[in-house]
Amino acid sequence: MGEFDLIARYFTRPTARAALGVGDDCALLQPAPGTQLAISSDMLVEGRHFFPDVDPFTLGHKALAVNLSDLAACGATPLAFTLALALPEADEAWLAPFSRGLFALADAHGCELVGGDTTQGPRNICITVFGEVPVINGKSQALLRSGAKADDDVYVSGTLGDARLALDALRGTVKLPAEVLAQARCRLEQPIPRVALGQALRSVASAAIDVSDGLLGDLQHILQASGVGATINTSNAINLIAACTRPDWTNGIISFEKQLEYVMAGGDDYELLFTAPASAREAVQAASRQAHTTVTRIGRIDHEPGMRLIDDHGNRAHALPSRFSSFDHFA
Amino acid sequence: MGEFDLIARYFTRPTARAALGVGDDCALLQPAPGTQLAISSDMLVEGRHFFPDVDPFTLGHKALAVNLSDLAACGATPLAFTLALALPEADEAWLAPFSRGLFALADAHGCELVGGDTTQGPRNICITVFGEVPVINGKSQALLRSGAKADDDVYVSGTLGDARLALDALRGTVKLPAEVLAQARCRLEQPIPRVALGQALRSVASAAIDVSDGLLGDLQHILQASGVGATINTSNAINLIAACTRPDWTNGIISFEKQLEYVMAGGDDYELLFTAPASAREAVQAASRQAHTTVTRIGRIDHEPGMRLIDDHGNRAHALPSRFSSFDHFA
Repeated sequence: MGEFDLIARYFTRPTARAALGVGDDCALLQPAPGTQLAISSDMLVEGRHFFPDVDPFTLGHKALAVNLSDLAACGATPLAFTLALALPEADEAWLAPFSRGLFALADAHGCELVGGDTTQGPRNICITVFGEVPVINGKSQALLRSGAKADDDVYVSGTLGDARLALDALRGTVKLPAEVLAQARCRLEQPIPRVALGQALRSVASAAIDVSDGLLGDLQHILQASGVGATINTSNAINLIAACTRPDWTNGIISFEKQLEYVMAGGDDYELLFTAPASAREAVQAASRQAHTTVTRIGRIDHEPGMRLIDDHGNRAHALPSRFSSFDHFA
Repeated sequence: MGEFDLIARYFTRPTARAALGVGDDCALLQPAPGTQLAISSDMLVEGRHFFPDVDPFTLGHKALAVNLSDLAACGATPLAFTLALALPEADEAWLAPFSRGLFALADAHGCELVGGDTTQGPRNICITVFGEVPVINGKSQALLRSGAKADDDVYVSGTLGDARLALDALRGTVKLPAEVLAQARCRLEQPIPRVALGQALRSVASAAIDVSDGLLGDLQHILQASGVGATINTSNAINLIAACTRPDWTNGIISFEKQLEYVMAGGDDYELLFTAPASAREAVQAASRQAHTTVTRIGRIDHEPGMRLIDDHGNRAHALPSRFSSFDHFA
C-alpha cells in the first residue's frame, strides 16, 4: 500500500463543516463571523508518550484527546484537525484500528480531519487542532492562563492520579489487581477531554489550563501568566484522588504520601484546572452540572507570589518536594 | 536547559497579527472578514527528508519553506504557523541556528510562530501553516487542483532538477565540480516558496499544485482532481532544466535522458505547476513579472485522460518510464 492509497483508505472522508478537506495543497476553513480560531499542536513520540505495543485504537483516541483538551482549556468549540503521521511502514493492521479510534473521538466532538501528511520514519503523531471561540463586543471569550486574580477560587475537574498509577504499574514499580489496573489504564490510554466543561466555563472562569504535566506544575503556569500566587488546601486536594488509587483498591500499597504525589504531580490527567471569583461559585456548579463533570474547589489565589500547601486548620501542611515540580521533556 | 526555557529562549517573540501567540493552551487567530483560512501541515523526518548532519540554519528554512510552498500553491497569503519539534536533546548549538533559519524566512513572509510543542525523541519537525484567501461574492479565490479544463495551458515556474541533482551528488552517485554542487545544494536545502507568484495567479490560473514529488507525479494529481488529461511538449519542458544540470556545467556527465528525468521526476523543487486558459496568456506573463518569477509553458490540458509526451513536431517523443512516477513515501 502506497502513501496516497493509505490516505484515501484510512483518512479521507467527506467534509461537513470545512470549505475544503483532505486532498489539495491546503485545507480551507471559514470561521463563523464574530469568532476567533483557537489553534493547538501536540506531538506524540513512540517510547516517550506511548509504549510501542499500545493498542492502536486507544492511541488514535489519545492523540486527538490531548489536543481537544487544549481546546477545552481555552473554552473553544472543536471544528477540525490536521494529522501528520510518521510510521515505520504502512501497516494496515495498525492503521485500521488507529484511524477508528481517532475518528470515534473526532465524531463525538464534530471535529473533522481536513489535511495533514504521512511519511516513513520512527512512529510520531503530530495533530494540530482548530476550535472556535466567540468574540462578544470585541472581547474574546477564550479562557486564558493569564486571568487569575487574588481571592479567586481554584478548582480542578474530575479526578487525578490514575494515569500515573497505570504508568507505574505498566513500568512494574507498582503491582495492582487486574481490574484496578484495567480501570487506571483506561484513564492513561483514553483520557476524556473536558470540552463541554471548558465551553460551559467561558463566561464563568477567570483562567484555565489542562492538567497534562501535573497539577502543581500546571498551576505554576497560571500563577506566572497571571502574576499571582496560590494557597492549596491539601485536605481538599486529596479528594481529587481517583478511585483506583485508594488504599482499599490497591491492597494498601499506595501510601498517603504517594497518593498526594499522584494528585499533585501525576500528569497525563487532562482534567481542567481553573480559577473563578468567589461570586461565581453557583455559576461554577451550574457549569459542572451542565457538562456532567464534577469539579472540586482546592484553594485560593493570593496576591503573594509562590505556592503554599496548607491543611484544614490553615497550618502549612507539607513542604513542596522537588519531585512535585512540573514534567519537563528535556529535564 | 529545560523544555520551557527552550521555548522561551528560541521560539517566543511578540505577536504582530495573531490575537494570541506562544504560551497559552491555544493560539488565537482572527481571520479578516470575507476570507478563508488555508491550512497545510508537513512533517520532516531525519534520515528521510534531511541528512543528520545538515546545517540547522538551512533546515529551519526548509521546514517552513515546504509549508509556505503549499500556501503558494493555494494562492494564500501567509499569516502564521505552529511548530512541533522532537529532538534527541535540547542542544543549543543546534537550536540557535535552526531558529534563526526558521525566523529569517518567516519574517520575509510576515508569517509568525503562534504555538506548538517540543518533546524528546528522534529528530522530527512538524509545521502547520496558516494563510488567508479572499472570498469574493461568496466565491473562494483559492487555487485548487481540481480546476483544470481541456485546452488550458500547462505552466511551471522557475527551473527543475537541481534539488535532485544535489541529492544524487550528496549520495555519491554523481560527482560534481564544487561550485556546481554548492549551487544545486542551495536549491535542495533552501528552496524558495513561490508565494508571490501564487498570489498573483489567484484570478488567473485555473488549477495549481507545488512540485514536491516530481513534475509528472504532481501533474497527475491535477489531472485526477480535474478529470482531464494532458499533453506535455518535452522540447519545451527541457527548458525547465536548471543551470546546474547543463552538460557544460557538469563536465558532460548528465545525459539528455538524465536531464529529462531530473525535469520530469526530480522532486523537492517547490516550483508551482499550474494551468490557465489560453485567453489568460498575457495575464500569466503579467503575474510572472509582478512576482519576479519566470514561468514556462510546457503543454496543454486534454479531454482525453492520461499523459502524453510529444516533441516539437507533435510526434510521441518518449515513453513514460515507470521511474518518472510520483515519489511515494511508502513505496
